[in-house]
Formats: sequence, structure tokens, C-alpha cells
Amino acid sequence: MAGKKFSEKHRLVYYDGDRTYHASIPMLVNLMVLASEDQSEQLGVGTSEVMKYGVGWVVTQYVMEIAKLPKIGTTIQLGTEATARNKFFCERHFSVTDDQGQTLMRVNSNFVLMNHKTRRMGNLIPELVDPYGSDEVKRLARLPRVRKIPDDQQEVMVKTYPVRYFDLDTNGHVNNSHYFEWLLDVLPADFLQTHMPTRLNIQYHKEIQYGHVVTSQAIKTTDEKGNMQTLHKMLVNGETYCEAECTWQSL
Amino acid sequence: MAGKKFSEKHRLVYYDGDRTYHASIPMLVNLMVLASEDQSEQLGVGTSEVMKYGVGWVVTQYVMEIAKLPKIGTTIQLGTEATARNKFFCERHFSVTDDQGQTLMRVNSNFVLMNHKTRRMGNLIPELVDPYGSDEVKRLARLPRVRKIPDDQQEVMVKTYPVRYFDLDTNGHVNNSHYFEWLLDVLPADFLQTHMPTRLNIQYHKEIQYGHVVTSQAIKTTDEKGNMQTLHKMLVNGETYCEAECTWQSL
Repeated sequence: MAGKKFSEKHRLVYYDGDRTYHASIPMLVNLMVLASEDQSEQLGVGTSEVMKYGVGWVVTQYVMEIAKLPKIGTTIQLGTEATARNKFFCERHFSVTDDQGQTLMRVNSNFVLMNHKTRRMGNLIPELVDPYGSDEVKRLARLPRVRKIPDDQQEVMVKTYPVRYFDLDTNGHVNNSHYFEWLLDVLPADFLQTHMPTRLNIQYHKEIQYGHVVTSQAIKTTDEKGNMQTLHKMLVNGETYCEAECTWQSL
Repeated sequence: MAGKKFSEKHRLVYYDGDRTYHASIPMLVNLMVLASEDQSEQLGVGTSEVMKYGVGWVVTQYVMEIAKLPKIGTTIQLGTEATARNKFFCERHFSVTDDQGQTLMRVNSNFVLMNHKTRRMGNLIPELVDPYGSDEVKRLARLPRVRKIPDDQQEVMVKTYPVRYFDLDTNGHVNNSHYFEWLLDVLPADFLQTHMPTRLNIQYHKEIQYGHVVTSQAIKTTDEKGNMQTLHKMLVNGETYCEAECTWQSL
């Protein structure tokens, strides 16, 4: 598989980080999306071009493998590449590399084109995807499913998050990175301060909007290898909008 | 008055902005603080040096004059200069300039050194302030006071904000810029989308911490010249932690 590669550098500054002195996951998501937006601009299919077709790119899933979170004060290289596509889905890879060339994170993701009027996904539009040079395939390798919180689960951590005005992007959509804030903030602060995510799989089912109150649920469990794991669900009015699983190690 | 001047450039990207396609106030505050942190590092009095004295810099007030908010996609120049100081307070100026050299924002501010153990402000420490070359004065020009919400005010807009894990900086304090989110988010979205702040005066009385639930109050009024104005108060457990006034114009 091969598409055009793009990369850019970013200096991680104080507001990119959290108490562990590492870049926060929400900010790393911002930076990955920025790399893909900058690639799109470079290829002549940036936001303004995409909007002419009455559509917009929407992520449906991210699977992140995190070897090490980058430290604040360092400069990272953000890489991205649209690797493959079928009729509806694009697969896009991201990477985060430190200034020694060591890979810190590898991310796989799926994107679709959503129609702005109908709020539904549609066929990919050749004019908008051809420039990336990704492989056209019949079947895309399916990303692993997210493990669900069992229905009979007793002890669920829960917090609610009304969507804020500043959660909205320039295009009026909830910025992707805020899902990760709602997802992670529900965990106790002393856990977040002493643990690092090593794998995060997040699936977006429906679009959260301004006016919504997000209920973020999480449970602690272990994965099949005995690693610490948290399972997550975000609901609006009792309906599931987003699910995620996260594997952790002690810092 | 004169201190050492420092400036640096920043490209405003999608996550720096809000729905109006301008840089958001919370992000501009992040960028101004970053400029002052980068100056401090350059002068050898960065965070790690300041921490050796068991103290940290804390802002007590910002007065912002906003001619125009910078547009997303443009590159701005952030300028800063520690202008004067007395025994306890430092005065620091900030500016935001566009790529044509036009000044978009001018900010005046006061900072103090807070002792990490006692959580109280102390005398300025010569080793930490001398490098900036600011004027030592008997009396600092007092920044204008913030107009208060009248006690008998009837219609007050109010929202509550539990402090989140990702509101905390690398040093474990609530990042300054989040005060501006709590301050502004309480206003209706359709107002924020159609108005631009022209002047913002914010006074910090006490330090908001993790575990706090912030009650943000606001009222709409007019200033002495008849301009649209909002008055703001942030409380924790009924005690006032922060007050602000903001003057607006239609976009």
C-alpha cells in the first residue's frame, strides 16, 4: 500500500502538555489532524475545495499504538499518508517521531465523506481522493472492534460534559480532540498522573453537536494479556455516540 | 519605561480558532504566555530556575485592547516586554501584530511571585526579575478596576464548570486560558458568533484548583459610552475567585 507521504515538525510547548510533562492525547490528535489538513492544502484539496462539494471529512475510527508519549519541550515530526480506499472509506496512517527519528506513535484511521445537508456519509468523490495517491481496493482491512462495557456492569465511572462553544471548530463541528478529553477526564486524576496509554481504539458512531450534554462512562478491567485496560462509552440522551478502549502501563 | 523586548511568530491553525474563523481569546492567552515563557528561558530565568526558589509567576490582571482578532491561517507576531516593577508587582506588556506589521492587540498585565508552599505572594526576587531589565519604580500605574455585577442584579446568566484534568498545566496549576473559556462560554453561542470583544479586563483574586466546581456568572449591560458590555464573576463555593468586564462590537 502506498499514498503520498507528508510530514511536518512541531515544537511541543507548555499548553500542549499535561501534568506528566508529556504531550496530551487531545493535543496529539489536534496535531495529527493538522498534518492531514496541511497535506490536503498542499495537494489542492483543502477545506475550501472539499466544501464546494457540500461534504466534509469525518473520522470514524482511530487505533493508536503508543510506544512513548513525547515530552514537552521537544520537537516532533508528524507524518501522515492516505494508504488505501474503497467506495466509502479512506484508510489513513499517522506517525509521531522524535528528533532522533524514533517512532513514538503509530496510528491507523478510517475517514468518510459526510454530506453537510443530509449529515450522512456518501460515496468517496474521485476529485477529492485521487490527489492523495492511495490504493483503490475492493476491501479495506477492517480495524479491530472496540471491546464494549458489559450491560450488567456494576461500578461505572461517569461524568457529564455539556458541549462548550469553544469545543467547536471554525467549521462549527465539535473538534475531534475534545472527545478524548471527555473520554479520559472521567478517570481519576491520580490514575492519569501515574499511567500512560499504550493503545487506544476509538470508534465514532454519531456526531456530537453543540447543545448536547455528553455522558462519559468508563470501567477498569484487564485485556486478554492481563494488561490494565479501561473501556469507555459516550452517550447523548441515552444513545451511544462513541466507544473506546484504552490499554495502560504505569509511568 | 523600558525592558528587554522579545517577540516570536506563530502560524494560526484550525484548532487555534473558533466559529468566527478568528483566533479564540483562550488560545491567544496561551500564545502570549508562551512568548513570556520563551523570553524567560532565553534570559536564563525559565520555569526550572524559578522553581528553585520555591515560587512561581502568577498573573493577577490582564487588560486587553483588541483592534481586530487575527484570522486563522495567518501568521502573527507575539511581542512581550516586562516594563516596570515595584516591590511586589511586575507590569508586563504584550502585543499581537499581523504579518503587515499592524497591531491587532495590546495587553497590559500584572504578575506576582507566589510561594508554592504558602500559596501567598511574596517580595519579588532580584535574581528572577533583574534579567528582564524592567524599571524599578516606587509606584506602579494601577490597572483600571473591573466593573462589578450589581448585588441586586436580576437576570444573571450562569453555567457551572467542574475543573478537568486537562485544564491543568505541566506544573499542576489550572492553565490561565481556561478562565477565558468559563468566562465566555456562559454567553449564548449566537452572541459569540456575531460579536467580537474589543476590550477585556480580568482580575484574578484567588487560584482555582482541581476539584473545584466553577460557577460562571454574566450579565449584559452597556459601558459609559453606550457600548455593549458584559460583566462576569466566577465563584467557587460562593466565594468570588475572578471578575471581568468585556466590551463588544458586532462582527
